[in-house]
Amino acid sequence: MASDLAQSARRIAADVEALTGERYTLPGAGITRYAYTDAYAATLDYFRAAFEALGFQVWSDPVGTLVASNAGPGERAFGMGSHCDSNRNGGPWDGTLGVVCALEACRIAGDALPLRVISFLEEEASGFGQMLLGSRIILGAVTDEELASYRDEHGVPFLEAAARAGYRPDERARAGEVLDGLIGWIELHIEQGRVLQDTGGRLGVVDAIAGYVHADLVVHGRADHAGATPMGYRSDAGLTAAEAVVELERIVTSHSPDTVGTVGALTFGPGIINVIPGRAEATLDIRSVSGDHEEVYAALSDFVLARAGARGQRSEMRERNRVPSTQMDALVVEALERAAALSGAPWRRMPSGAAHDTQMVARRVPSAMLFVPCRDGISHSPEESADPADAALGVQVMLAAARELLAD
Amino acid sequence: MASDLAQSARRIAADVEALTGERYTLPGAGITRYAYTDAYAATLDYFRAAFEALGFQVWSDPVGTLVASNAGPGERAFGMGSHCDSNRNGGPWDGTLGVVCALEACRIAGDALPLRVISFLEEEASGFGQMLLGSRIILGAVTDEELASYRDEHGVPFLEAAARAGYRPDERARAGEVLDGLIGWIELHIEQGRVLQDTGGRLGVVDAIAGYVHADLVVHGRADHAGATPMGYRSDAGLTAAEAVVELERIVTSHSPDTVGTVGALTFGPGIINVIPGRAEATLDIRSVSGDHEEVYAALSDFVLARAGARGQRSEMRERNRVPSTQMDALVVEALERAAALSGAPWRRMPSGAAHDTQMVARRVPSAMLFVPCRDGISHSPEESADPADAALGVQVMLAAARELLAD
Repeated sequence: MASDLAQSARRIAADVEALTGERYTLPGAGITRYAYTDAYAATLDYFRAAFEALGFQVWSDPVGTLVASNAGPGERAFGMGSHCDSNRNGGPWDGTLGVVCALEACRIAGDALPLRVISFLEEEASGFGQMLLGSRIILGAVTDEELASYRDEHGVPFLEAAARAGYRPDERARAGEVLDGLIGWIELHIEQGRVLQDTGGRLGVVDAIAGYVHADLVVHGRADHAGATPMGYRSDAGLTAAEAVVELERIVTSHSPDTVGTVGALTFGPGIINVIPGRAEATLDIRSVSGDHEEVYAALSDFVLARAGARGQRSEMRERNRVPSTQMDALVVEALERAAALSGAPWRRMPSGAAHDTQMVARRVPSAMLFVPCRDGISHSPEESADPADAALGVQVMLAAARELLAD
Repeated sequence: MASDLAQSARRIAADVEALTGERYTLPGAGITRYAYTDAYAATLDYFRAAFEALGFQVWSDPVGTLVASNAGPGERAFGMGSHCDSNRNGGPWDGTLGVVCALEACRIAGDALPLRVISFLEEEASGFGQMLLGSRIILGAVTDEELASYRDEHGVPFLEAAARAGYRPDERARAGEVLDGLIGWIELHIEQGRVLQDTGGRLGVVDAIAGYVHADLVVHGRADHAGATPMGYRSDAGLTAAEAVVELERIVTSHSPDTVGTVGALTFGPGIINVIPGRAEATLDIRSVSGDHEEVYAALSDFVLARAGARGQRSEMRERNRVPSTQMDALVVEALERAAALSGAPWRRMPSGAAHDTQMVARRVPSAMLFVPCRDGISHSPEESADPADAALGVQVMLAAARELLAD
């Protein structure tokens, strides 16, 4: 078993390493691999060849999500996988590790279990600015109108890009077929946080994916000369925004411990040392599994309105997205927990703060996720790093859970 | 007198209007007029011709500060003036109005009073990034080493640019001669704040120019995934910076009412909605006449150190400049006050929060300033606007004060 794990870790490491080669990424630091680029097509070809070498059948959905199985389309099988696109200058592990580990699971299981691997198109919102695009199309969670509006950075419409890449986007209503027959689904992914590392865990069994609100706060004050305008004569938009940043932390920490809130970007306009900010813009990212993020967002909105009002300012909260949290399937979670416990390795049950394709899959298929640690929680960066030994352990646990669930 | 004032206002308006012509500004909105540009040279030529038409002698200091007088160089005279360079896309009034009003004072006084008008080079830091450059050279407040390091946006060294423009920068040690013989100095300027407008004042007698600290606050935290990192695992640099913004207002308002503090620019890095800020940078502009700005800066530094420390972060306070406040001369201030009171117009004694060449001149010559309102306190903008009638009134008051002081 120890020797099997070591060999499995070496194969996983070799796949991840191979996919850092220059044909698999656009130029620049780390990995840059957007849907429909040559680098992306080469990556799909890599997996296609690997699965065909195992005797698996390989096909695609109408927009380019890759599917491989040792059972026919629509037949009973257990699903595993992730995505293999990346953000700009991302790392080799995010997403790709989940597809590599699903491949490794197929190598180990051979024909002993009916498995289906899926590599979803455009998870990272890098090519067309839309997170979870492939899995949302599969779940019918994108309208034709929305889809028609998506374009890449060169202005090429999504549907045209899909057709150019050889797919049949007109048949996208049939995309959902890739989930037909699945009795369960597990996505293995790096944690993208530091909880496992900091607590010495090697595996995280994900029981829920946080919901979130993404929004922009805009405060309109008045730009005045920083020297010539006494404090009582000011309408400083930056102060209101800074108060909101501080207040967000206070509100969040008074809610359930799975709640997080972040101002990732804050800018003052005109942004000159001796000019009072006439305008301030802050991004808001508020998440929770419990649903508390909705309450936090509402409380922050009230706070901003009150503080801007007290300063004689106008403020806006512009919502970008509001996504509910997703509970993982209890049976799949418990099967993973039993397998993790049997492995003897340190593990924990935990939520995913990050979004994943599994939150879409879970709408139709009993689903869960398995996290492995990544160094210092770093992801979406060339610095991203993980231990193939943890991934090999994850494959064993994932397979054990699939075996149990298929046997039921 | 009313008719004299109206005529004077019309002449002032005509000069300001003439200097908005396209030969007097680089292309773009508003006025853009940097030292040694063709637009700047044309502006000096405009004033040179106007003074020569009055029979005044016109000369320059070794780097390009323009001087005009009805008395010879070094002879006893009363000084008036300002600067006629602008910031990028500035307005027609800042600085230029002070030179125009000095010219108007000479028109009115003729040979009745010995007057010397000075238009200082590069007040706005636009050409070579150095505020009060011309007046600092005159006061010997720039080292040769500093001067040798100043370059314009094209990389041309200041000394080379001065020579190319026809001046003799090698003789700059003699620049101070332009102040020889002056028994007093008054600079008329738009307020650049909204105190006069909001209190219905037409004139402000400036009794002090605020000192200031300009600095940058840098906080080094750790960039983590906004969804995958629970609140207790974070080192959010943005939060520390936001707390500093809020705290600065609190500290400032607990000090003397002439104290102001501003964070004009604040940026988070990497600055992405779903990434916790690993770095935050804030500009600091803290001023006072009382000297309280020093205490505020020190208190804020302590606060930042404590808050960054509490979050396990490193922080830096990088000082750019520290300039002491400058008291205006009591006799000049009182002469202006008497003249303002006699004018019957609403006026007030007030500090200048903004920096002016007069703070350099005041080191050698008994000096004060006279403010006129500008609309909504706007300056450094194409929107900058002032009332020529207020300026004409200011010229009368300035002349009355000069007459009194010359008579002593």
